Amino acid sequence: MHQTITAMVETHPTEIRYDRQLLEECIAACAECAQACTSCAEACLSETDVDPLRRCIRANLDCADLCATTARVLTRHASYGEDALLGLVLAACAEACRACGDECASHAEMHRHCEVCAGACRRCAEACERLLATL
Amino acid sequence: MHQTITAMVETHPTEIRYDRQLLEECIAACAECAQACTSCAEACLSETDVDPLRRCIRANLDCADLCATTARVLTRHASYGEDALLGLVLAACAEACRACGDECASHAEMHRHCEVCAGACRRCAEACERLLATL
Amino acid sequence: MHQTITAMVETHPTEIRYDRQLLEECIAACAECAQACTSCAEACLSETDVDPLRRCIRANLDCADLCATTARVLTRHASYGEDALLGLVLAACAEACRACGDECASHAEMHRHCEVCAGACRRCAEACERLLATL
Amino acid sequence: MHQTITAMVETHPTEIRYDRQLLEECIAACAECAQACTSCAEACLSETDVDPLRRCIRANLDCADLCATTARVLTRHASYGEDALLGLVLAACAEACRACGDECASHAEMHRHCEVCAGACRRCAEACERLLATL
Repeated sequence: MHQTITAMVETHPTEIRYDRQLLEECIAACAECAQACTSCAEACLSETDVDPLRRCIRANLDCADLCATTARVLTRHASYGEDALLGLVLAACAEACRACGDECASHAEMHRHCEVCAGACRRCAEACERLLATL
Repeated sequence: MHQTITAMVETHPTEIRYDRQLLEECIAACAECAQACTSCAEACLSETDVDPLRRCIRANLDCADLCATTARVLTRHASYGEDALLGLVLAACAEACRACGDECASHAEMHRHCEVCAGACRRCAEACERLLATL
Repeated sequence: MHQTITAMVETHPTEIRYDRQLLEECIAACAECAQACTSCAEACLSETDVDPLRRCIRANLDCADLCATTARVLTRHASYGEDALLGLVLAACAEACRACGDECASHAEMHRHCEVCAGACRRCAEACERLLATL
Repeated sequence: MHQTITAMVETHPTEIRYDRQLLEECIAACAECAQACTSCAEACLSETDVDPLRRCIRANLDCADLCATTARVLTRHASYGEDALLGLVLAACAEACRACGDECASHAEMHRHCEVCAGACRRCAEACERLLATL
């Protein structure tokens, strides 16, 4: 995946407006986190006791949607200026990742899929914040 | 569509945490704007002279993705508290709608699909801001 | 919503390749069903006894994703020929709607949101099949 | 990304109903192809002469949407049976990848981003067909 992201950024016909490495890392982190959250929602739904995991499932679904949209917006903004929008999207995505990561971390000891997902959320929140700091 | 949104909000098993009318209007406006923007991107791609419409197509694609995600997040947050996330998502969506609406409005006289889309964007930006003001 | 869909189809710069009314109805049905399913998944997650609703939540999430993608593909194919793809997408969407509608219908007496959602699913499955029959 | 997909499949609380390696490869291929197609649409929009790339942009957008939805449906179906739906979704995704891959390949010599994207499309079509053959 990262290789494909790099190849696509490198072959883009116009100048990239952002730090290339931070942009690529943020797109990769969003794609990974979207996948982890979709998977964690499904795993939570499959647990014997789903009742205490409702909040986690909602946070997973929100985070998956936000990360997927953020990866798309970032990809389109490589060369085109809308820093106000990009900043707001990154802030919303970082918050979704933080909320979902905290929720997952709170039962990471009981559910290993939540532990894996919490890691993906934390990496994605950090990648969004690092890129946001350069805008 | 609005009837279905109302019926689903009315039959939700727990208390709705937001102003019901503003919530329903915002979900409906997001769904309508997502559809208008997907359609406007396609219509722009079909114009004889697509060159001056590149920026509009990008704004359409961003706005369609943001509106679709916002409709989902709003629907999930009817009964569950994450006001910080909801506020950031509404702010990002309103900005995408404003940017896309301005772009579409700038060639509304030449392309009627941009005129229709600009209207949907403006209504959606306003609906997001009205709901945001109550958080 | 339907008004916006009609206005966008009417203002499209090139010829529409499909029956206009069936196309508009199918896009509207997909948008409505995507919204109903996202909402039904949330309502199911909010029920006191979520355990017997796991299968319904998965069917809702699948159906919401399929309907949203189908509305987008239909919108883009108004004027551009890829009947093989359109046929497969409509068939997949109709199946997702049928599976979700059957699941929702099976507990419609107990959960009114499932009854509303089952109706949206049935209308969407039928709209997809009607359009599919003209390809 | 692949590591996260593997970790999530491994930590799923119930039995996986499909060939684990084919499932993981297909999810990874869909995620990669969705990203490549979003990126290729943006790169095409940024080319000096966008006119001959309209068809490619539409194919990219269709393929990105289909691949994203397919990754989600596959992730949810790891443990839950709806083979009829899964088969139709995989067939639709494979067709979108084939159509987009052919289009991209036809100008791969002129645009290196289309060459990279054509590769991602081909790998994803093959991964979908391999999994489809086991249903």
